[in-house]
Amino acid sequence: MASIFTKIIKGEIPCYKVAEDDNYFAFLDINPNAKGHTLCVPKKEVDKLFDLDEETYNGLMAFSRKVALAIEKAVPCNRVGVAVVGLEVPHVHVHLIPLNVMKDMTFQHKISMAEEEFETVARKIREQL
Amino acid sequence: MASIFTKIIKGEIPCYKVAEDDNYFAFLDINPNAKGHTLCVPKKEVDKLFDLDEETYNGLMAFSRKVALAIEKAVPCNRVGVAVVGLEVPHVHVHLIPLNVMKDMTFQHKISMAEEEFETVARKIREQL
Repeated sequence: MASIFTKIIKGEIPCYKVAEDDNYFAFLDINPNAKGHTLCVPKKEVDKLFDLDEETYNGLMAFSRKVALAIEKAVPCNRVGVAVVGLEVPHVHVHLIPLNVMKDMTFQHKISMAEEEFETVARKIREQL
Repeated sequence: MASIFTKIIKGEIPCYKVAEDDNYFAFLDINPNAKGHTLCVPKKEVDKLFDLDEETYNGLMAFSRKVALAIEKAVPCNRVGVAVVGLEVPHVHVHLIPLNVMKDMTFQHKISMAEEEFETVARKIREQL
């Protein structure tokens, strides 16, 4: 069965899209740790980061860097943090999280955002790409 | 002033070394989230991950992948997770953390290990490289 991220990539589930190329896709996390929290995923559906073939892994990290640099320009923060966990959705995803304090990285303090805020922050990031 | 990681790389502060090449260095985190928790750092002393030049960033991610694959062979775990935070030590470091449950990633549950355990796990990882 297709993962929820594959359904998002195919447009079967809506998302706040940030970036896309032939092999990778980025969109806002809808249960964000902080405003601008973005997920970067390979279109290839693989569960674990280090099970990706070397080329796909390197490409994902390069894609994530481009998106992170755009987030750092678009969203006020100390820096963009990175996390790859993957214990919930079995499809590799790189969390890019605008950080100010350590709790932004713990996944235990979530923020709520209105639909318009998601749209605005996604647009601001896209404009920096 | 040299960062604590630069002092570790230069051998001025001891560490449980896991891997080294011309540009990168890996050693066990001495305040680990889980057994096998490793830090990968560029020898170039830069504070923020996304301030690294593209070549150094790509090299760091490729180096971290090699170390992570060795950790996955050496340390029983569901997978190796990745985190880059950097709010404490101003020298880029990629956390590679053997994960079983989400709390292994939160940096709020630390484990204690004896010196011999550190030495054993570092050796087991090195043997897989």
